[in-house]
Parts: sequence; structure tokens; C-alpha cells
Amino acid sequence: MVTHLSEREKETLQALKDRLREVRDLESALAVLGWDQMTYMPPGGAAARGRQMSTLGELAHAKSIDPALGKLLEDLRPVEERLPYDSDEASTIRVARREYERSIQVPPSFIARFYAHRAESYAAWEKARPENDFAAVRPYLEKTLDLSRELARFFPGYEHIADPLIDFSDYGMKASTVQAVFAELRERLVPIVQAITTQPPADGTCLHGSFSREGQSAFYGQVIRDFGYDLNRGRCDVSAHPFTTEFSVGDVRITVRYGENDLSEAMFSAMHEAGHAMYEQGVDPDYEGTPLAGGTSSGVHESQSRLWENVVGRSRGFWSATYPKLQAIFPGQLGDVPLDTFYRAINKVERSLIRTDADEVTYNLHVMLRFDLELALLEGTLAVRDLPEAWRARFEADLGVVPPDDRDGVMQDVHWYDGTIGGGFQGYTLGNILGAQFYDAALGAHPEIPSEIERGRFDLLHGWLRENIYRLGSKYTAPELIERVTGGPLQVEPYIRYLRAKYGELYAL
Amino acid sequence: MVTHLSEREKETLQALKDRLREVRDLESALAVLGWDQMTYMPPGGAAARGRQMSTLGELAHAKSIDPALGKLLEDLRPVEERLPYDSDEASTIRVARREYERSIQVPPSFIARFYAHRAESYAAWEKARPENDFAAVRPYLEKTLDLSRELARFFPGYEHIADPLIDFSDYGMKASTVQAVFAELRERLVPIVQAITTQPPADGTCLHGSFSREGQSAFYGQVIRDFGYDLNRGRCDVSAHPFTTEFSVGDVRITVRYGENDLSEAMFSAMHEAGHAMYEQGVDPDYEGTPLAGGTSSGVHESQSRLWENVVGRSRGFWSATYPKLQAIFPGQLGDVPLDTFYRAINKVERSLIRTDADEVTYNLHVMLRFDLELALLEGTLAVRDLPEAWRARFEADLGVVPPDDRDGVMQDVHWYDGTIGGGFQGYTLGNILGAQFYDAALGAHPEIPSEIERGRFDLLHGWLRENIYRLGSKYTAPELIERVTGGPLQVEPYIRYLRAKYGELYAL
Repeated sequence: MVTHLSEREKETLQALKDRLREVRDLESALAVLGWDQMTYMPPGGAAARGRQMSTLGELAHAKSIDPALGKLLEDLRPVEERLPYDSDEASTIRVARREYERSIQVPPSFIARFYAHRAESYAAWEKARPENDFAAVRPYLEKTLDLSRELARFFPGYEHIADPLIDFSDYGMKASTVQAVFAELRERLVPIVQAITTQPPADGTCLHGSFSREGQSAFYGQVIRDFGYDLNRGRCDVSAHPFTTEFSVGDVRITVRYGENDLSEAMFSAMHEAGHAMYEQGVDPDYEGTPLAGGTSSGVHESQSRLWENVVGRSRGFWSATYPKLQAIFPGQLGDVPLDTFYRAINKVERSLIRTDADEVTYNLHVMLRFDLELALLEGTLAVRDLPEAWRARFEADLGVVPPDDRDGVMQDVHWYDGTIGGGFQGYTLGNILGAQFYDAALGAHPEIPSEIERGRFDLLHGWLRENIYRLGSKYTAPELIERVTGGPLQVEPYIRYLRAKYGELYAL
Repeated sequence: MVTHLSEREKETLQALKDRLREVRDLESALAVLGWDQMTYMPPGGAAARGRQMSTLGELAHAKSIDPALGKLLEDLRPVEERLPYDSDEASTIRVARREYERSIQVPPSFIARFYAHRAESYAAWEKARPENDFAAVRPYLEKTLDLSRELARFFPGYEHIADPLIDFSDYGMKASTVQAVFAELRERLVPIVQAITTQPPADGTCLHGSFSREGQSAFYGQVIRDFGYDLNRGRCDVSAHPFTTEFSVGDVRITVRYGENDLSEAMFSAMHEAGHAMYEQGVDPDYEGTPLAGGTSSGVHESQSRLWENVVGRSRGFWSATYPKLQAIFPGQLGDVPLDTFYRAINKVERSLIRTDADEVTYNLHVMLRFDLELALLEGTLAVRDLPEAWRARFEADLGVVPPDDRDGVMQDVHWYDGTIGGGFQGYTLGNILGAQFYDAALGAHPEIPSEIERGRFDLLHGWLRENIYRLGSKYTAPELIERVTGGPLQVEPYIRYLRAKYGELYAL
């Protein structure tokens, strides 16, 4: 196999990289504008900012579907085929080709229509939610469904109409794969939820009270630095909804939201977002500006946020080292609260209405329920007008609670109102499953990780994740990466084992 | 005169505006990236940010010289000639044409070379200044001079090689005009400086001590809001060098720098930048996204910052109303300091080395000295190797002080190391002159302005400036605007009268 490149091939590859870098630079600029919009932009800036972002978005899209890019990819086909699959060069061409071939399926006129509709739909939801007015968002949601189906149909050959949408965020997955995973998970999870929620609930009162912002940020700031989030290449700000955004390998930022009288909100959202951010920060710096930078799929990304937030951040080992530091910051509030009480409070399991507030056990029920409703909507077996009722029925069946209104029901979060119907939910639960599976693999390599965590150290775990997952960026697809890291495909078993071990110690299971 | 537009003409004008808006959107995105770079970007983001900004800059430039834009401007020539000069339509076409015709003179390859050199030169200066190493920056400065001359030569037909560079920031001005103004100013200013600096200096000690950031920002934040800076359409952050940046009429931001143990630095830089920002915020909202948004020239812009910082912000009337509020914030530091002592301290005049720290009287000597050195460098009558010596000689002659080293001499600020030699300085002193001239015109219309200011109110002054200057954006050139506002050309007299009145009360003149 000839693995070196001719001068001509090097030039062609460089020309490809230059074009891709230009697209990424525009997308990064767009991300900076978006970050600013959510953090520091004064209200008066909103109108022009929307316009500026749409100008940048259209330019980036136009450049990402430029036929000259297709020509370069065509010219580089022999190089891709000749070089080892694992080489950075072949991987760059392969990932660029996949993205290009996907992008050119969608006409720019559709993108423009879709973005315009998104903005209108978001505005309608923002107004209608406080007024509990589903009728006001219904026509927008119907159009969103139409557009989501139209988008999927640009990718003919699918088994299920949701497949192309799932493929966008979790490449290599389709509805039937996810359904099989979810069916297994549900079968094993429901008895755990049943067992826990029929026992007396944990006492969460110690998390509520008056906790100064300064104290909170001093605490979680130290925790995420200890985890390995590099503040020389990132920062943490405040926004209405926590998020992670990446401008380059050297600049990956997170935001948190403070809860009124709630100690857990900012703390766990910081750990969660830091998990996402460490993934992006850990990508091989050589991939900066190339298609290999950035995490490989929604599910793998979520595995990192959930691993740090839950597997580490809600573990007894972590808190045995860290709780005294939190008590020292809030002596009046927590000085007399024993570690065990605090630990039970942050792991309180309950059947609740709001997905983003749900505990790590019942969270998956929220996700699976939304996933099923999405498929039904896309298939046409559920009409938008019947969605609120279907929502209530599923909540009653799956969680044993019924939303008192649509505000905290079908209109509870921005999903569906600011994007497609379909493809946006499976990653959350795949992330929970994968987080446990990856953690298992890390323990296999370094059985001393738990004892390190009990000493408030995270180097071994972070180092293993960086070496085995982070640095690879999106060189491998999620299925390839899972195989590489765990020696097999995605498996529900480690996650169930993790839940049983952890909650078996807290409840009779 | 047929002043309405045919459907065809309307479409052509709209096509022009769409193209110009796209360029402005890219430039605004670039401004957001620049603002972030100076305020919140973590160190690790620097390399990629430079790359992203240069990608955006090249795109914006390419779009600003697109021949299709030239064709639209050509098609619209009859419209521009037919419609009244003052109409928004004719003005939009006129200003767009001026900018287009200027932009197409400069080959993109030159822009790329110049930007690359700027970045290198800035890096060299940043390293060499603390080391007082002029030899290290000399080759960069020589190349900057070559590039500045090369840039000027793209605009043949000038009287003086500095003219095109001056024209960039102060359209309609040239070296000879500025020299004539500066000669008159110098003749009348030097005796005032002489008279003041031979008298005992004011006591500035009350401005030095420990002033909390919170107290400082609470104070100046209220002052700039009182002036009329709208925080719903702006914000104030901290950066190493204070600046104003505009992303849209609805989002004009400022930054300040805090002095170590120095009360005046943040306070006066906030007033100065708020002056710039109120100009941008006051532009007719209909001009948003068009070439008419934004201030008309460097000199007029600086007139607004200097007017609010000095004519208002260092006046006795202003402090008679406001000083008690400052004392209330810093009772330990200022409680026993009489108003008169404080007033004299903030207006202390002295012969000093650093332009940016100079008082409003001697500041102009710094500017004129730099302007003359720039012309000599561009003419070739002064070589870069002789610049440090020429600098010292001029400081001794004009200010009676000799810089002890190049660090606080020819390398004192980023000018010349981050831009062209030529064209960057005259605006500061033109601004001082124009600020006084505009204030005079405002007083002519509303003689009660000073008594309003003594009551801590600024509505009349702000309203007059908004109506007569701000809202017009760059519809008129600076000379046109000055004529419109004051009934005549730029005049030194009001500024000298202002200085004599103010400093005559503080010193025997």
C-alpha cells in the first residue's frame, strides 16, 4: 500500500482543508454570535443579531455545498481508498465526504424556509407557553411536522421516516435500532422505578434555601477545574438555559443557570456542561479547523456530560471527598446536614413532569416517551391536534403523573418548537447508557479510579477518556468508537448494573 | 424634479441595499468577534480567533468590491442625480459609491499582506515594549511605512502622500488643511500651556488611593446613564484598552479600564466611550444595516467623546451637582476633600510623556507632534532609524520633557504598530476643536444647557446633539455636517475660548 501522498495530492488535500476551514470559521463566528446572544447581548441587539446570524448561516451553508468542494472530494477518492482507514488524511476526506453528501441533498431554499419557520415557531412558543395556549402553537407545530417530513424525504431509501433525522445527530443509528435498545431498557428500568417510587421518598429539603451565587460559583468552579475543565481554554457564564459551545479546540465555553433557592441546579448543570466541554477541549489539536474536530455524535456527547454529572458527580465516593468543602462554603445551611442526607437528596428519585428536572432513573422514561411520540407524529399515526391528549395518556401510563396543563406538558421545553420533530431525543438516553458502558471500560483499564475519586482526584478517569474518546474527535462514527473502546456494540447491561448497584444501596430493589 | 422611484429603480435600490447589508452583517460579526477577543475570550482561543477574523474580513472585503455592486451603483446613478441630495435614497447611493470606489482601488492581495504584517508588527511591539527594544520593532515599522506609502499610492492625484490616509478617517480633509488648522491652534495654545505650567501645579492626590471597583462602576454607570447612554441598547465591560464598538443601532457597547489606585481612569474613559456610543446609538434606526449608519468621521466621532468627557465631564457645573454623589460612595476617601480641590485635581495640567494620560490642554501637543512626525516619515524626510531621536527632540521642544526610554517614548502606544503610519492622529485634535464648536452651537440654541448640567440633567444637550448630529449618521461628510450645524467651517476660536475661560478661572492666564 502506497501511503505517502504525491505533491499533487497534497495540494488537493490542502485545497480541501482550506475550504473546510473557511466553512468552520464561519460556523465558529456564528457560534460566537449565538453565545453572545444568550449571555451578554442587550435586548436592543436582538433584531439585528437575528439578521446577522442568518447572513452568516446562509454563507456557511452555500460554501458547504459548493460544487468545487465536491470536485475536490472526487479528486481525493483514490487517496481516501489508498490510505489506511485510521489515518487522519483518509478520515478527514471520509468525514468531509459524508457531510458534503448529506448537505447537498437539502436545497438551500428549504433551509431558508426552515430557519424562517423556526424563528417564528420559537417566538410563538415563547409567548404561548406562559399563557398555556397550545392552540396558538398548534399551526406552527403542524408546519414543523410537515417540514420535518419534507427534510427526511430528501434522503430516500430509509426504513422509517425518522431515520434520516436520527442519522443527523446519531450517525449510523436508525429508528429500529433505537427502538430495540429502548425496548430492552424499558423492560429492565420500569421495575427499578416501580420499586423505588413505592418506597418513602428521600428528603430533598437540604438543597433548598438561600445559597449565595458567589458561594455556588466558587464551589462548582473548583469542581469542574478538578474534573479537568481547562479555564485557559474555556469559561463559564450564566444564561437562561445551560449550554456548551465550541469556537475552537482552544475555546470551549459553558453556561449555567442558577436556581432560585436551589443548590443543585447550577452545580449539576456546570458538571454536565463541563462534561460536554472536556470532550471538545480534549480533541487532538491537529484537528482544529478540520471536520475531525468536535464530538462524534449526540449520544456519545451526552455520554460524557452524563458520566461527569451523574456517574461521578452524584456518586457517594465523589461527595465523601468533596462534601466537606461545600459545607465549609455554606456552614449555616449544610453544617448540620450529614453526608448521607445530602447524598440521598441529590439522588432523590420521583415521578415528575419536567424532563430537565428529572432524576437520572426516571429521566429515560421522559426521553423514551418523547421518542415514541415523535415517531408516531412522523408516521402520521398521531395528529398534532391529538398530541396534548397523547402526552397526558403516556405520562399517566409511564410515570403515573398527569400534567395539570400543557405549559408543563407538551409545551414544557423548546424542543419541537425550535427544531425538527424527530432526531432530537434519542441521544439523551443513548448517552446515559453509553456513559455507564464507557465508565465500565475505564474501570477495566484502571480499577483504582473509584478510590482516586474518593480522594477528590480525577486524572486517571479524565486521562483515559481523553486518550480513548476525546482526542479522536469525530474520526470514528459512534458505533466504531463504541466497538473500539468497549470491544463490542452498545449495551444496556452496564447501565442497568450501575443503576442497580447505586440505587440498590439507597433503596430496597 | 421627479422624486419618486419607478418599480424597476426600487428593485435596483433594494438589491444594492441587500448587498450592502450583507457586507455590514459580516463586518458586524467581525466586530462581535473583536469585542469578545478583548473582553471575555480565554487565552487559548487567540490563535483560532485570529484565523476566524481574517476569514470574515476577507469575505467582507471580497463582497465590498464585488463588480455586481459596482454595476448596481452605475445603474442607480440617474436616481442619485435626480433625487434631492438630502434624501436618504440619494445619500445611501452616494455614500455607498464613495466607499465602493475607494475599496476597489486597493488590491485584495495588498489587504492580505497588510493584515498579515499588522498582526506580526503588533506581536513584535507587544514583546519589545516592556523590553524597551526599539531595534526589535524597527524592521516592522519600516515595513509599515513602506506599506502605508504603497496604500496611499493606490490613490494617485494627491497633493501630499498622507492625504489618502487622512481621507480614510476624515473624509474631505488633507494634510495641508490639517496643517493650517494645527498651525493656528499651536500658535494660540502654546502661550496657554506656558502660562499654566509655570504656575504651581494642582494637587492631584485626592484621585489616588483605594477606590473599590464596585463603587467606581456604580458611580460612572449612573453618570453615563444620566448622560443618555442607553443600556438596553448597550453595555459596559472591562478591557485592557477602553473602546466603543457597534454591532447595530440597537447594540453599541463600551469598555473601560480600571486604574490601580486611580479614581479618574475608569470614570473618564466611561464618559469618553459613552460619548462615542451615544453618537452610534442616536443614528436614525432606519439607517440600520445601510452605509448611513455610524458616525461620519474620526474627528466628528472624537468631538462627541471629548465633549462628554471634558466639556461636560470635567466642568465645574457638572461636578457641583454630581460630586456629593461620588463623596457618598467614597466617604472615607473624599468626604473631607472640598469640591474645588477635586475639580482642580481632575483638571490638573502638566507636561507629561504619555498621550493617553495627558490633560485636555497638553493633549493636543502630543497629537500635533505625532502628526508632524507621521508626515515627515511619509515624505521620506525622516528615517525610521532616526525616529526615536526625533521623538525625544520634539518632546523636549514642545513639552519640555524628555522620555527616559523608548518604552514611554516612541513605543508608548499601539498606534503605528497596529495600523498605518499616517491618518490615525489628526482626528483626536480635530475632535477637541469640534467638540467646543458644537457645544457653542448647542448653547446658541439652548442657553439654559449649563444650568441644566448644574442640576445633573443632560436632556437638552443630548437632545440637541441627537437631532443635529447623531441621527444623521454618515449622511453628510464632516465638512457638510459642520457647516450645517455651526453655519460655517471648522474653527479653532471656540475651542481656545473654551480653554481660556475654563483655565483662566483656575490659573492666571
